[in-house]
Amino acid sequence: MKVIIFGGDGYLGWPTAMHLSKNNIEVYCVDNFSKRKIELENGIKPLFNIETMQNRVKIWNKKANALKKIKFIYGDLLNHRFLYEVVNKFKPDAVIHYAEQPSAPYSMAGREQAVFSQHNNIIGSLNLLFAIKKYSPSCHIVKLGTMGTYGTPNIAIEEGFLKIKHKGRSDTVQFPMKPQSFYHLSKAADSLNLSFACRVWGLRATDLNQGVVYGSDTNETNLSEELNTSFHYDHLFGTVINRFLVEASENIPLTIYGGGEQKRTFLNIKDTLKCVELALKNPAKKGEYKVRNQFTEIFSIKELANKVFAAGKNIGIKVKINNIKNPRVEMSKHYYEPSNKSFIKIGLKPALLKIKYLEEQILKIKNNKNRKIIRDIISPNVQWNQKD
Amino acid sequence: MKVIIFGGDGYLGWPTAMHLSKNNIEVYCVDNFSKRKIELENGIKPLFNIETMQNRVKIWNKKANALKKIKFIYGDLLNHRFLYEVVNKFKPDAVIHYAEQPSAPYSMAGREQAVFSQHNNIIGSLNLLFAIKKYSPSCHIVKLGTMGTYGTPNIAIEEGFLKIKHKGRSDTVQFPMKPQSFYHLSKAADSLNLSFACRVWGLRATDLNQGVVYGSDTNETNLSEELNTSFHYDHLFGTVINRFLVEASENIPLTIYGGGEQKRTFLNIKDTLKCVELALKNPAKKGEYKVRNQFTEIFSIKELANKVFAAGKNIGIKVKINNIKNPRVEMSKHYYEPSNKSFIKIGLKPALLKIKYLEEQILKIKNNKNRKIIRDIISPNVQWNQKD
Repeated sequence: MKVIIFGGDGYLGWPTAMHLSKNNIEVYCVDNFSKRKIELENGIKPLFNIETMQNRVKIWNKKANALKKIKFIYGDLLNHRFLYEVVNKFKPDAVIHYAEQPSAPYSMAGREQAVFSQHNNIIGSLNLLFAIKKYSPSCHIVKLGTMGTYGTPNIAIEEGFLKIKHKGRSDTVQFPMKPQSFYHLSKAADSLNLSFACRVWGLRATDLNQGVVYGSDTNETNLSEELNTSFHYDHLFGTVINRFLVEASENIPLTIYGGGEQKRTFLNIKDTLKCVELALKNPAKKGEYKVRNQFTEIFSIKELANKVFAAGKNIGIKVKINNIKNPRVEMSKHYYEPSNKSFIKIGLKPALLKIKYLEEQILKIKNNKNRKIIRDIISPNVQWNQKD
Repeated sequence: MKVIIFGGDGYLGWPTAMHLSKNNIEVYCVDNFSKRKIELENGIKPLFNIETMQNRVKIWNKKANALKKIKFIYGDLLNHRFLYEVVNKFKPDAVIHYAEQPSAPYSMAGREQAVFSQHNNIIGSLNLLFAIKKYSPSCHIVKLGTMGTYGTPNIAIEEGFLKIKHKGRSDTVQFPMKPQSFYHLSKAADSLNLSFACRVWGLRATDLNQGVVYGSDTNETNLSEELNTSFHYDHLFGTVINRFLVEASENIPLTIYGGGEQKRTFLNIKDTLKCVELALKNPAKKGEYKVRNQFTEIFSIKELANKVFAAGKNIGIKVKINNIKNPRVEMSKHYYEPSNKSFIKIGLKPALLKIKYLEEQILKIKNNKNRKIIRDIISPNVQWNQKD
């Protein structure tokens, strides 16, 4: 099997590449390094050292004894000539599309960032659809979406579609969207484009509406520090659990946005890899646009903070908690009942979040001599409704 | 009252500008001429001669005796510095945003056209939101959307929102979207962005989901041929009734796409002007995202052809009808029950389509010596699911 991973240098792209390579899949990674560039511009660094993409590919291909070597090429989905060439040359059986600006706060920082996010994500994905249509139309497109496109409706969130009854008639429609940032809005536009391309051109796609991922250890990253994936604790790219772990290990109060009763979906990075693998093994049919909600658990932010507090207590760290003004515009208290049946049905055995895991992660961070924490980049500096 | 019309050179933008100017509103038109440029590239011309924008503004300002002169500036919404300057300088009470690539077939012609449509429309509109937020945040944004974002669901189409019951709970959500082309998809993305900006920034907007407009006579265009708006009969910009009228007057068989049982919403160009005026007079509140469906009647394409046939008969023209392979991917037979209550409620008295009107229009076209018909540009040459 041949797979192109777009965004192969990312937090999830790189572990996915190694995981597939280990499973004897021929992997071709593409990345434009836009996230590393945004890090640069904002004085942000991941917690642990990350090799250059070129170097870690070399190290993996040497160390891992994988039957199939990972290939990497630098390039941008906005450059359609490049993209057409890559798809035409490699003729993938599947593509995994992570190649999007992934930060909601970044997309809300101002006009330039909002436009970058929507342009990069929507137009890049549109180019990809045309490349697939032209050069590999039966290829399975696995696209990373986000649970954030649904928002927090007062009804149960199904997977992609909703059967509606209205005035005595019924229809099944794409699940209504209420995205929470220009980033999430870009994913909503992507999903509509993707669904259309399946309907009209007969492409096949799986849209993975993913929750918030935590952790950075996978079987493959654990082989060597040189194979690390990025672990972010900053206000732009740091997802909440990762941020809390760093704060706990540094004796910084956990920064809860608002009251902390807002609920979100979560999953361990290892489960991301399992889900993507399951999605590849259970592809959409020709013309089908399939949606799977990709998460394992639901927590409020306060519940997460309490878990980190409990973990800290077990290892002798007194974790403080600080409720700060919520920089985001989001519902503080709400109903939340999303479904994740689709992955459970095809075999996902979720790795649920254990206090023990949090303890290990805090200690790993605390005791790692190579980690360097920049305190200035933790607190949010983007307000959703800031004045210009 | 001060109003900026973005897309003021367009089929609807120009008549709107004159109509508002006549009503003592200070009108500032902005256009990047992208539609005239697309015409050039495709060898397309409107049926009747159209003055340059600069010239017809001059003629209007001289002839019309309007209290307020129309101002015009050439510029592009993708150029945010230009846009910021215009909004900052003029500080409008309302903006009317027509400035989008408006052709569904154009957007389906290939990658370049799809990307142009989505880039121009989505990013241009996003720039506009930031400009309004920064320089005129209490300004009422009147945005032209399309009925095409809804598609043809098997349930009644409400205006923008839908009250849903699901598993014993209920919520009101943005009406589910199923757009039918990359153009329609751009409008869907716009609507999600616009709704978000109202919710998060407190902007106020009315999204006008408009049906298919026909006709080119308004009280103002009728003052002089030099004040014409564009009348298109070609496969890219020609809407179906206008196309049928030209075909009837030239003894070309009416080109029905497929069986002709697909239904769409329609309105006379004069009703577009009334609707936009009513929308301005009944603005959304601060933070409100209001949606009005802007049409007056529903017809199947076959019904329209039969009306044109009847009109032809009355004036001694034998109209032929030709069912051609549908170039679009759309449902051939479907339920269709959209609501337009919102405009009726605030005073719209629809000008319904009369056979007499069609007769007059056919004769007007037939007898106009200045009209020139290019037969090659009438038949569709863009297939929705064409091979590359």
